[in-house]
Amino acid sequence: MKKLDVLRVEPPNWWVGFKETSLQLLVHYQDISERKLDVFYPGVTIKNIHYADSPNYLFIDLHISKSTKAGHFNLVFKKEHTPDLVFNYTLKSRITHSKDYIGFNSTDAIYLITPDRFSNGNPSIDINEALNEKNVDRNDNYARHGGDIKGIINQLDYINNLGFTAIWLTPLLTNNMYHGSYHGYAITDFYQIDPRFGTLNDYLMLSIETTKRGMKLIMDQVANHCGLEHWWLKDFPFKNWINHQDNYVRNRTNWNETKSITTTHRRTTNQDDYASNFDKKGMSEGWFVSVMPDLNHRNPFMAKYTIQNSIWWIETANLRGIRQDTYSYPDKGFMSLWAGAIMNEYPNFSIVGEEWTNNPLLIAYWQHGNPNKDGYLSNLKSPMDFAMQETVVNSLNNQEGYDSGLIELYEALANDFAYTKPSDIMVFPDNHDMSRIFTRLNGDIAFTKMAVSFLALIPRVLQIFYGTEILMQDFENPGDHGLVRSDFPGGWKGDQVNAFTGKGLNENQVNMQGFVKKLLNFRKHSKAIHYGKTVHFVPENGVYVLFRILDNETVIHIMNKNQGETKLYLAKFNEIGLQGRAVKNIITSYTFFWGDNITLQEKGCFIFSTKL
Amino acid sequence: MKKLDVLRVEPPNWWVGFKETSLQLLVHYQDISERKLDVFYPGVTIKNIHYADSPNYLFIDLHISKSTKAGHFNLVFKKEHTPDLVFNYTLKSRITHSKDYIGFNSTDAIYLITPDRFSNGNPSIDINEALNEKNVDRNDNYARHGGDIKGIINQLDYINNLGFTAIWLTPLLTNNMYHGSYHGYAITDFYQIDPRFGTLNDYLMLSIETTKRGMKLIMDQVANHCGLEHWWLKDFPFKNWINHQDNYVRNRTNWNETKSITTTHRRTTNQDDYASNFDKKGMSEGWFVSVMPDLNHRNPFMAKYTIQNSIWWIETANLRGIRQDTYSYPDKGFMSLWAGAIMNEYPNFSIVGEEWTNNPLLIAYWQHGNPNKDGYLSNLKSPMDFAMQETVVNSLNNQEGYDSGLIELYEALANDFAYTKPSDIMVFPDNHDMSRIFTRLNGDIAFTKMAVSFLALIPRVLQIFYGTEILMQDFENPGDHGLVRSDFPGGWKGDQVNAFTGKGLNENQVNMQGFVKKLLNFRKHSKAIHYGKTVHFVPENGVYVLFRILDNETVIHIMNKNQGETKLYLAKFNEIGLQGRAVKNIITSYTFFWGDNITLQEKGCFIFSTKL
Repeated sequence: MKKLDVLRVEPPNWWVGFKETSLQLLVHYQDISERKLDVFYPGVTIKNIHYADSPNYLFIDLHISKSTKAGHFNLVFKKEHTPDLVFNYTLKSRITHSKDYIGFNSTDAIYLITPDRFSNGNPSIDINEALNEKNVDRNDNYARHGGDIKGIINQLDYINNLGFTAIWLTPLLTNNMYHGSYHGYAITDFYQIDPRFGTLNDYLMLSIETTKRGMKLIMDQVANHCGLEHWWLKDFPFKNWINHQDNYVRNRTNWNETKSITTTHRRTTNQDDYASNFDKKGMSEGWFVSVMPDLNHRNPFMAKYTIQNSIWWIETANLRGIRQDTYSYPDKGFMSLWAGAIMNEYPNFSIVGEEWTNNPLLIAYWQHGNPNKDGYLSNLKSPMDFAMQETVVNSLNNQEGYDSGLIELYEALANDFAYTKPSDIMVFPDNHDMSRIFTRLNGDIAFTKMAVSFLALIPRVLQIFYGTEILMQDFENPGDHGLVRSDFPGGWKGDQVNAFTGKGLNENQVNMQGFVKKLLNFRKHSKAIHYGKTVHFVPENGVYVLFRILDNETVIHIMNKNQGETKLYLAKFNEIGLQGRAVKNIITSYTFFWGDNITLQEKGCFIFSTKL
Repeated sequence: MKKLDVLRVEPPNWWVGFKETSLQLLVHYQDISERKLDVFYPGVTIKNIHYADSPNYLFIDLHISKSTKAGHFNLVFKKEHTPDLVFNYTLKSRITHSKDYIGFNSTDAIYLITPDRFSNGNPSIDINEALNEKNVDRNDNYARHGGDIKGIINQLDYINNLGFTAIWLTPLLTNNMYHGSYHGYAITDFYQIDPRFGTLNDYLMLSIETTKRGMKLIMDQVANHCGLEHWWLKDFPFKNWINHQDNYVRNRTNWNETKSITTTHRRTTNQDDYASNFDKKGMSEGWFVSVMPDLNHRNPFMAKYTIQNSIWWIETANLRGIRQDTYSYPDKGFMSLWAGAIMNEYPNFSIVGEEWTNNPLLIAYWQHGNPNKDGYLSNLKSPMDFAMQETVVNSLNNQEGYDSGLIELYEALANDFAYTKPSDIMVFPDNHDMSRIFTRLNGDIAFTKMAVSFLALIPRVLQIFYGTEILMQDFENPGDHGLVRSDFPGGWKGDQVNAFTGKGLNENQVNMQGFVKKLLNFRKHSKAIHYGKTVHFVPENGVYVLFRILDNETVIHIMNKNQGETKLYLAKFNEIGLQGRAVKNIITSYTFFWGDNITLQEKGCFIFSTKL
């Protein structure tokens, strides 16, 4: 092994003024464990120095007293009483008050972007010769395409004008992998922006520009695993730094793929009182895939590393939310600690965790405040509503019947009774891991609008994947990740179609883009949607009607699955108290008085508001 | 209207020694409201007399002090100070201590019987000329066939020998309907055994004979509705005695069927925070069917009537359980009061409520102790597990795949984490309202055994429908109620086949009957099944393995969906600690030592026990 001649200290800086006064530094350098450490700074004391299994690591517990002032100090490492290594460490002042980190919530519509595929603002950084994957090829859906942070900054006005109030970018940290590094989930350095996306400064600029527009920046983080090329796999600090570490063979050509070390994905083992230990380990200790080793958070140093890394990014980039990947895969006790540590520091922050399940019992289980029988305290504000997503699709695609069609959606929403706080749950027509909604709905624009508007109006945090507004699709191979994450037209110089300007979009795309813009800009200012009570009526004759009500504002959502004109009698809805009130179609602006009946001109959604 | 010259007092008698010291009598007689009442008995006082909307009713609140002795007293009704009507009322001593009414529980296997279709012990009462439906026709699946209480008494040894520990008979109370009275759910007198089933004495004899065999008698009760020919529909006490009473027209030929007064069956309105009042009423105030008027338990006299009726039957017939029909249809606040009143009086009693749902959230909601967000306190010990029933069928019928087949069953059982007490939930391969399990499993005997034994071994109360043990089926018209409830062979004199003696059964039937007998007699004495912890393993290669463990007893259930011999390696199960222990196949009695592997000879279930 090459001699380690770069002194790595992580986190690379910290702050004064946190509730948590302890800080654990990971120090990595050749034979660092043979050295002693001196620190002289008012308020900073060394509480403990932990040795690892590798001689090249130290884990240093510092105590940062409440009165410590921001500033710099040296970590002075001495070999046989002689200083031979110094790291200048910075304790910064915090700029934003903890309480002002207001996370995303039901007022927000979040635009989800795969950065490599959205907009290429700086083609000069597309290829980085120092990194393992060097090619850029827009004809290969699994290669990098060159999208970057600068590109996203360039299009923030587009996103903002559409009515979005937040952005979630899939991971931007370095993925120094040989293949498939574009997606970002195989992180090889938890403290570095991938140079092909830009610099840390670019990311901070994105944060500033996002905030300037009143929008929130959400970071996609990955606690469960890292990329196989992560630097620490070349020199593990501990024997149990990753799961199945015994089976790990450094030389990739010797990698024993036959060893069953990937996860079983049987996520119910997290909750199941009857699950065997064999299956629990198979789930939580298995690697996500064979090129993404599973981090072992039962190792307390790994746990602390991951928690501090998240806080470092929140504080550095002034985040307003974290999306945590594969939330149910790491040790669940750790995930509670992790989320709890963040929420303790930032009480109004938001974290959304990915648990891909259609079972509301599991969605309920993960949400903070659920009275779990096993006593599990989740600390997770926002689970994801894959159940609702799947049901929206099925309820539209399935024929209307006593137990099929819109009634499925009605009953799925009825399940909200079991959630601690439905409005904190994140819902979405689709995301970067599944077939696009327009494809799932077989290219039916009316259905696509119905799905999007229904999800926008129910009590949820709303997330929409980039391109939904222009009916992006994956008909060729539904669900294929590379295809789902196709380039956004106009993001590259010379693109024939430019969805940012509208150039070259077909009529349907223009129509959908206009619809989304009206819908989200309306949603943005509708307190009834953000906080109102919900009343819905059992669907009848292919029509499903839902109301959101707050004070004097009522929003009405009607889905009509019938082809052609459909008359809807309104007496049934008298309890809502709309009789004689003027209501406006928020898309067409047509205004009328709520009377005996209305005519739904065609299949589709009809959204009315008493706010004229 | 005919003059009412029979003095009806209900409950017709009561007991001393209840916790509840109040008793409300319904008195019905021509112009009874014009009379005064005198009662002279030590410890009994009239607290209140309520007038109804009809002059022919009085509701009398008596207080029965704790020190009151059993005995008789007269209710003396006076007209203008002159006694002109007397009812001799009995207060009985209670024979059994409240705590000794030990309801059914996870130690029990319940045999469900449709009494008209099981065994005809007394053909002389098949037809009752005083009742509206007079014919008996075994060729008509919707006519009466003549089965009765005496017939069931005759076959108690058969049931007992099969290993059952309890019987649930569908309702035996009078259904004086013109058609379809055989099923018993259209009760027209809540205090009378239908004469075509026998007398009250017959029912008490059934209770005695059941108890004598160490078995428990469960009564099927119906709080939600009555039959259209119930006597009180001819003279409603109150304007709101039944729901939609305004729309009720006594002359049946004028009955306006077009009025939408039947329930919507949208049962999620019971839980849904967003349900409209319109839909809540449509569900809970709608009649079950047009010949079964919906009783209005928001009327406090109706509520009291129903509660007292249930207690009267428990005390009279020494019941060990109630099965409450259509549990989710009446006002849910009332159902909580009803179940609470019974459990308050009989703390160890059991009630199972019918909620036909495949949604575990709803099953969980109804079980007593669930931390419902809306604060609903259910008082219901045993919901029904329709979700598990449906999943057993699907998991066997569906092809094995990553997300289909036995994994569906594994994940359904994993949902137990969300239940307050899974072992109090009742499960069943089928019941009287659905296609029989052998039919649902397409006539596959191995699958049928797998379904029955799985349900018998998981932590549940087990219910099996009569005839399952001889593979009764409804292939001709799956799910048809009359067909599902076919005659049990041997229950009628002259039957060619007699399943009680085995005469004429085919080989498969004999095999299944023997299997059920061994399974249930084993279950009867297995504390591991009754109370043990459960450990199961993610199904692999078409094999699903589940363990029940208590102290030194381990029961092993293996389902093999593969055709032909299948080798199962046992190292995976090491955590169970069976290595080197002797285990016995409870069906074949073959005994072997738990080693490296076992060979599953064929498709089917394999049940082993460490109890040799």
